[in-house]
Amino acid sequence: MATQFSIKDDDVDIVIGALQSDLTSFMNAWKPIFSRFHLIIVKDPELKEDLKIPDGFDVKIYTKADMDKTAGASLTSQLFSGYSCRYFGYLVSNKKYVISIDDDCIPAKDDKGFQVDAVAQHLFNLAVPATPLFFNTLYDPFCKGADFVRGYPFSMREGVPCALSCGLWLNLADLDAPTQALKPEQRNTRYVDAVLTVPAKALMPLSGINIGFNRELLGPALFPGLKLTKEGKLRWETMEDVFSGMCVKVVCDHLKFGVKTGLPYVWREERGDAVQSLKKDWEGMKLMEDAVPFFESIKLPAEAVKAVDCLLEVAKLVKERFAAEKNSVFIQAADAMTEWVKLWKKVVPASN
Amino acid sequence: MATQFSIKDDDVDIVIGALQSDLTSFMNAWKPIFSRFHLIIVKDPELKEDLKIPDGFDVKIYTKADMDKTAGASLTSQLFSGYSCRYFGYLVSNKKYVISIDDDCIPAKDDKGFQVDAVAQHLFNLAVPATPLFFNTLYDPFCKGADFVRGYPFSMREGVPCALSCGLWLNLADLDAPTQALKPEQRNTRYVDAVLTVPAKALMPLSGINIGFNRELLGPALFPGLKLTKEGKLRWETMEDVFSGMCVKVVCDHLKFGVKTGLPYVWREERGDAVQSLKKDWEGMKLMEDAVPFFESIKLPAEAVKAVDCLLEVAKLVKERFAAEKNSVFIQAADAMTEWVKLWKKVVPASN
Repeated sequence: MATQFSIKDDDVDIVIGALQSDLTSFMNAWKPIFSRFHLIIVKDPELKEDLKIPDGFDVKIYTKADMDKTAGASLTSQLFSGYSCRYFGYLVSNKKYVISIDDDCIPAKDDKGFQVDAVAQHLFNLAVPATPLFFNTLYDPFCKGADFVRGYPFSMREGVPCALSCGLWLNLADLDAPTQALKPEQRNTRYVDAVLTVPAKALMPLSGINIGFNRELLGPALFPGLKLTKEGKLRWETMEDVFSGMCVKVVCDHLKFGVKTGLPYVWREERGDAVQSLKKDWEGMKLMEDAVPFFESIKLPAEAVKAVDCLLEVAKLVKERFAAEKNSVFIQAADAMTEWVKLWKKVVPASN
Repeated sequence: MATQFSIKDDDVDIVIGALQSDLTSFMNAWKPIFSRFHLIIVKDPELKEDLKIPDGFDVKIYTKADMDKTAGASLTSQLFSGYSCRYFGYLVSNKKYVISIDDDCIPAKDDKGFQVDAVAQHLFNLAVPATPLFFNTLYDPFCKGADFVRGYPFSMREGVPCALSCGLWLNLADLDAPTQALKPEQRNTRYVDAVLTVPAKALMPLSGINIGFNRELLGPALFPGLKLTKEGKLRWETMEDVFSGMCVKVVCDHLKFGVKTGLPYVWREERGDAVQSLKKDWEGMKLMEDAVPFFESIKLPAEAVKAVDCLLEVAKLVKERFAAEKNSVFIQAADAMTEWVKLWKKVVPASN
């Protein structure tokens, strides 16, 4: 199929979490792609220096002062420090679509050497249906030149709304600290020219590095809250997006929305020293061993018909499941989820 | 990861169902790839002319006479006519791995212009583990340069044995008759450089055009039997592989084996007229509407620990589910499955 789509630029916010103060080279690299859109830049509340942002963008900057005003100082430090600062942008955006890309990524080139418009690809992914109920072996059937293959049930060919588009990474892949430390020279050079819907009931590790989502459908389902004890300012030390991603997937399966993965790629620059991170005794390894079976076992009630309801339900289930583990990261995450949803309901009245 | 693998050529049979008598150009196109291996060529029992096969291959040919001797004339026509003749090759092979490719396919070229060794890729897919229990966003983690991404549970990184490798098609994709008829000019030109494990619990439409499987693990799970009333000698008129494929997927999920899809591609030549096929009132469209919910609902008993047991169990469930529909293609397929398993047990004593 060759599906046309039209999303107005006005319906899109690009949200950037600023973990470094000088965004000049980042912004300039993205200028041809970002300059048409409204940008929300959220400064890590722990970042001291003033932001350096080049001219030529339609940008609104949010800092700790804005967070404190909206959420209070205590919740700000609980929810929005480090990589999680971007979630404040998700909260204050009032657009239908949000695209978010880490500030150590620049546009990638495709397998033919052309610069990839990551925003256009995310919007295409979000605008055309997803097909989580049956796997199409030729990947996204709505992509130009592709189609549903023989045997694909005709009644399922309309698909379902796509709520989340997860992009990938060339150069430095999104590996965990142990893997990155073991293979310091490994770089991802394989450009896989495909988008696919992750099948219903399958869980996947969402990476927040390069994503787009339908904020009207997902509401607060992408949330900060899971914080590792020794979490720092490097991606491989964080798990908030992976945890939230499993929750989003369960919510999407329940609400009959689709999650896509694949294109677009971004080019990830080097940052940090994986061996140093590894010395922190990386908690994330153990965490997934408990989180995956939990999310696999979840069944949300039929009454939960909005993402907001689903999220509160998941928070409740997390608390029940991990009740015996006082002060566990899961209980803290569930508390943060609850606070986050409260805040969302206050700031985004339409979500009620 | 960059996984080494070694499969001995002696452990492999290449099974070709001959639907056309002159295999000269087909065999010559595959010569550099096939000539190292033992070939089983099974002649469609309805094909009258003698086969033309060029020299230079280690090949064993099976014809209607062999089928009649092994299965009886009645079962031969029930099970092995048309595209289904290849299943006789699956039966009489005594190798661990079987690769099967339609006789209207020639080697494809990859995105860099190099000829694809489809056999080597299938064997790689089969030799390295599959990861059906959690989706890896960088596709096959065992492929060179790839790995498990951040968040992938460490306890699941060993994977499970891969039982089935489903390859894809460039040029003429494997579409159904209505789609092909609607878009006569459409050709698949997108080379997606990836192999992925189809997640557990997700169903997919298996195409028998270009596959490899582990015969020791799957036994008779790839079976002929589902015949459309007006089935002819064109792929888009058949559904036997799609039906059997859903059964295989359910069996693999139950036995904790993996199914992979993606590379290798083959180049599919044109054959037949889709519009003519469409005039036959293509039954396949309706069929999947019943088959998919059925296969989604199946739960196999814990006692079924071999593919043979699972298959008999599925046949029983098909008969129960479609009992009200006398003479339906499903009941006929279930009967054929039962006969097929009986035959398999007789010819392959190790399966008992």
